[in-house]
Amino acid sequence: MISGADDAITRDGKALILAYDHGIEHGPVDFEPNPATADPERVFDLATHDAVTALAVGKGVAESYYPSYEDDVALLAKLNGTSNLWMGEPDSAVNWSVDHAADLGADAIGFTLYGGSNNEVEMAEEFRDAQEGAREHDMGVVMWSYPRGQGLKNDTSPDTIAYAARLGLELGADVVKVKYPGSGEAMAKAARMAGPTKVVMSGGSKTNDVAFLETVAAALDGGAEGLAVGRNVFQRENPGEILDALEALMFEGATVEEALTYTSAVAADD
Amino acid sequence: MISGADDAITRDGKALILAYDHGIEHGPVDFEPNPATADPERVFDLATHDAVTALAVGKGVAESYYPSYEDDVALLAKLNGTSNLWMGEPDSAVNWSVDHAADLGADAIGFTLYGGSNNEVEMAEEFRDAQEGAREHDMGVVMWSYPRGQGLKNDTSPDTIAYAARLGLELGADVVKVKYPGSGEAMAKAARMAGPTKVVMSGGSKTNDVAFLETVAAALDGGAEGLAVGRNVFQRENPGEILDALEALMFEGATVEEALTYTSAVAADD
Amino acid sequence: MISGADDAITRDGKALILAYDHGIEHGPVDFEPNPATADPERVFDLATHDAVTALAVGKGVAESYYPSYEDDVALLAKLNGTSNLWMGEPDSAVNWSVDHAADLGADAIGFTLYGGSNNEVEMAEEFRDAQEGAREHDMGVVMWSYPRGQGLKNDTSPDTIAYAARLGLELGADVVKVKYPGSGEAMAKAARMAGPTKVVMSGGSKTNDVAFLETVAAALDGGAEGLAVGRNVFQRENPGEILDALEALMFEGATVEEALTYTSAVAADD
Amino acid sequence: MISGADDAITRDGKALILAYDHGIEHGPVDFEPNPATADPERVFDLATHDAVTALAVGKGVAESYYPSYEDDVALLAKLNGTSNLWMGEPDSAVNWSVDHAADLGADAIGFTLYGGSNNEVEMAEEFRDAQEGAREHDMGVVMWSYPRGQGLKNDTSPDTIAYAARLGLELGADVVKVKYPGSGEAMAKAARMAGPTKVVMSGGSKTNDVAFLETVAAALDGGAEGLAVGRNVFQRENPGEILDALEALMFEGATVEEALTYTSAVAADD
Amino acid sequence: MISGADDAITRDGKALILAYDHGIEHGPVDFEPNPATADPERVFDLATHDAVTALAVGKGVAESYYPSYEDDVALLAKLNGTSNLWMGEPDSAVNWSVDHAADLGADAIGFTLYGGSNNEVEMAEEFRDAQEGAREHDMGVVMWSYPRGQGLKNDTSPDTIAYAARLGLELGADVVKVKYPGSGEAMAKAARMAGPTKVVMSGGSKTNDVAFLETVAAALDGGAEGLAVGRNVFQRENPGEILDALEALMFEGATVEEALTYTSAVAADD
Repeated sequence: MISGADDAITRDGKALILAYDHGIEHGPVDFEPNPATADPERVFDLATHDAVTALAVGKGVAESYYPSYEDDVALLAKLNGTSNLWMGEPDSAVNWSVDHAADLGADAIGFTLYGGSNNEVEMAEEFRDAQEGAREHDMGVVMWSYPRGQGLKNDTSPDTIAYAARLGLELGADVVKVKYPGSGEAMAKAARMAGPTKVVMSGGSKTNDVAFLETVAAALDGGAEGLAVGRNVFQRENPGEILDALEALMFEGATVEEALTYTSAVAADD
Repeated sequence: MISGADDAITRDGKALILAYDHGIEHGPVDFEPNPATADPERVFDLATHDAVTALAVGKGVAESYYPSYEDDVALLAKLNGTSNLWMGEPDSAVNWSVDHAADLGADAIGFTLYGGSNNEVEMAEEFRDAQEGAREHDMGVVMWSYPRGQGLKNDTSPDTIAYAARLGLELGADVVKVKYPGSGEAMAKAARMAGPTKVVMSGGSKTNDVAFLETVAAALDGGAEGLAVGRNVFQRENPGEILDALEALMFEGATVEEALTYTSAVAADD
Repeated sequence: MISGADDAITRDGKALILAYDHGIEHGPVDFEPNPATADPERVFDLATHDAVTALAVGKGVAESYYPSYEDDVALLAKLNGTSNLWMGEPDSAVNWSVDHAADLGADAIGFTLYGGSNNEVEMAEEFRDAQEGAREHDMGVVMWSYPRGQGLKNDTSPDTIAYAARLGLELGADVVKVKYPGSGEAMAKAARMAGPTKVVMSGGSKTNDVAFLETVAAALDGGAEGLAVGRNVFQRENPGEILDALEALMFEGATVEEALTYTSAVAADD
Repeated sequence: MISGADDAITRDGKALILAYDHGIEHGPVDFEPNPATADPERVFDLATHDAVTALAVGKGVAESYYPSYEDDVALLAKLNGTSNLWMGEPDSAVNWSVDHAADLGADAIGFTLYGGSNNEVEMAEEFRDAQEGAREHDMGVVMWSYPRGQGLKNDTSPDTIAYAARLGLELGADVVKVKYPGSGEAMAKAARMAGPTKVVMSGGSKTNDVAFLETVAAALDGGAEGLAVGRNVFQRENPGEILDALEALMFEGATVEEALTYTSAVAADD
Repeated sequence: MISGADDAITRDGKALILAYDHGIEHGPVDFEPNPATADPERVFDLATHDAVTALAVGKGVAESYYPSYEDDVALLAKLNGTSNLWMGEPDSAVNWSVDHAADLGADAIGFTLYGGSNNEVEMAEEFRDAQEGAREHDMGVVMWSYPRGQGLKNDTSPDTIAYAARLGLELGADVVKVKYPGSGEAMAKAARMAGPTKVVMSGGSKTNDVAFLETVAAALDGGAEGLAVGRNVFQRENPGEILDALEALMFEGATVEEALTYTSAVAADD
């Protein structure tokens, strides 16, 4: 990682990435719980919230909407991705060149690596080109480090996530996005393995705000420097509330209890 | 999509694409019902009709005929395509470079993506190069988004077509051409998923003008912004009539009933 | 096709291509009936006959001999080809770059496409590069369109040859070389499918001049604009005679009967 | 090899390479015996020891730490490497371009070749590009020559290691890193096969300093011009001691017995 | 072939190539009969003999030794080669770029083609690039034409060798190196097939100088314009003797009997 390379997509050194690549990765089924979420404009509006430090979208969505939001949103250009219509060994097409992303004004690039897949070698080499291209354009580099494929049974075990985080450091990411490994302790190990590369967790409970915020707090305590959110936020009726809560928790020193006051959530045991 | 990138191939924001890539995709068998249709000149003449907003052909046909029609026809350069002599997992050769298409004066490029095919990743990366090349030449981008291949049983189900339309948006097409998903409602969903990317339907009844025009009307009502026609138009004895009808329906506010007066068709139940 | 792009390899708009790529495609076995034919010089001398509008050879043969014949022979640079030592799915190596062929003074390029082969997609993309390179150098483009490979049982059926001819038009060849489909009528269909792209037939009887010339006459009547000859001509003791006959038939308005007077052949029923 | 190309990574013509690519090749499991070793800074500090002539790390680690150590550490940019999450035929992704390594100030490149793997041909061609790129930047070239894959049962047999060393010479490495083949005599053969290319041994006992230093001495006596160390050094509580011992042995003419005085190790038979 | 392109590696139009690529192709086992032969310097010294018209070595060996011999030895840069640790379908890695070879002062390039291998198409395309690159640098082109792989049972049959020789001509080699096909007559056929491309034989008896020189004489009488020697020469105790004999035979008009006086060999029937 390059010191400061992530400044444009972090706040006080921490990242809250709003990810919106579901249209390509999963398709319209992800928008069904709340049909309004199919509209990227809604998500771009959400990304203007002060808690959100970067919005991750694909090329077409960025081309269509980013020009109207470039002053208010930091663009994390998600370069690769593939539909789930395809069912082979995990792989991901590079749908967006670094140069095109830079022309559009992207602040950083995002790239998925499926370590352990039969396509790992090829993906790592594609990542190399993307990472080095980003360096030339002074853009940050975020790796979605998701071990997957032949031989990997449980891709969220602490050891696998620690390895995934380390790959972020070894291969030159400024930020590495990993699945939540189940505990703050496991997250701490992953963070330690990533060294100066910042670890952001993805995932967490979608149904219970208390559990979700406690997981986030545990991850942050463990050394994660942020999180990536998607459906858990944008599918809500009032997504601004949870962003308010996350802002309090991540950037304003609030406790989980204090942060919860921003949401209409009720305690898990209610 | 880039706002305005499709202006050269639309009229009032709507597209009526005359597609004539059958010679490569299916071969001479598609010309047998009306042998005169093997002659590209006949189709270029047809494309001068005011209803037609773009003519999609391959490189060789464009090289041979477009220079004589460049003032009267908008050229949609269909870059990839493959004969059906070949029977493997769906794939498509890139037969035409963007630069060559631009030199010939093309207004937009057309590109097929077989989402779900074992070749999806490679095709998506070829699309990336084509799409970004088109941007450099200020040409519009039309995606033939046709999920196909291993694991896809019914490639015109509403869910598949909605996903296909979304891929057009996500990957950077200005216009996405999808199969008709069976109902106006399903088409509406596809259009909603595509956001600002324009959806054009392909297909529809070949034997019954009433049914065909009602399908078109339903698709337009559903949010499609046009259609792509091929054999259904150029194989007719009097293809100008159906183009007159489509022009009335699409661009002049006519009802299906009014549009039908331009054709010699009789009602389905006659 | 580009109007006039084939001028350097045609006479009165018709082509008589002398093909001499047997050394790579079949090896020395093709020279055994007449060992002198192994010497390219003999074939270059033959190519200076006024009836021959172009000589198709590979890079090495052209490098060695063409400089001595460049004023008298039109060079058709056969870019791809493969030995038959190899027995896999039909494929062909690109042994010669367009730039090198242009430097050597080639008038046109020749390229084999095995439609229907598992390698069709790759070969079509190689053809794209060759064809577009030829355009940059103002060289003509001749496609050897030979459907072959998995799923093709009879590659000279009228339907297959018609499709082969159409591929020449669709992909941008100026001239397309196809196997003789068995009748003048079938050839006429192929020629109609190729539109402005010129169809030349390859093959025909090797043992009977009457039958051979009648086949040629039928092909020309059917719309073919020439033929490609190889062993049938260069293996003869007096190949000049059959070239005289072909010249009379193709370029001087002679009947088959009149053309036969140039040869020492006897009628089939003699 | 180019005379002098290795000067920046040798001392008196000999190399002591500290290798720290375990984070990518094996993952966090290699840091478990001494968790502090996960921190690259600790290893960079260790590399400032006068005994260490070069530090081999991957791109991300180099980007993060090398700028602070560039005056005190010679950087050996390990260009390729792959996680062991992946279990196919041995292969290695090229994660770092030569140009990027040169920009960062690397003194030499390191590259793994798995001779005997089904990927040998591809890896050798990748090595070619890396080696020639290094020549352009006046960087040294170190090959990790590790025969592995289909058909290789014992990859440390004297014959295999001799072949591995020879490949270093043949393909253009300045230094070739091979596994210890079991005896000083076998190492001598490997060194003889490598000619002017310097052979460095990797491996050796991890539990017994006497045995380790005797192996090193035997290798040096056999003609090896150095060694590569990793876990055996950095996992120790006091890694400086063994480096002191190696410095005495390699650069100051000490005997094994004398060198042992620098360590807290006891004799094997104690 | 280009007239004169081989001047730097021939003498009186004939070639005696000393080949020393055994270190990569076979490994140290080839040096065991005479361990001193592992040292490239010994072979470079040998190559200064007036009988030797070119020395074929790989990149690393050339980098290490050629600068000291560039006034006395003609360098034939053997661009591709692969270890026999690998056991798949015959293939060969391109270990050396033409540009790098030219920078080093190579007089010609050498390239292996395994006609008949599943990798023939790829190898032929790699040869194309190498051959055309050599033309740009005015270097000669030598093809090692070795049919091998699926379907080839006896790769030294007269027909196979004749085909191999022809491929040299067809693909643009100035010199083609083939296995000895067993008789002067068979060699004559191969030479006739290669036309102006010079055929050099490789192989021949290693144990009997009479038989070896008689084979060479038969090959030269048959039309071969030289030979390639390796172990048969450099493994000898007094390799200069056999080179003296070959010089007499090839360049000074000596008979086999006369040439034998230069060697310490005895007649086969002694």
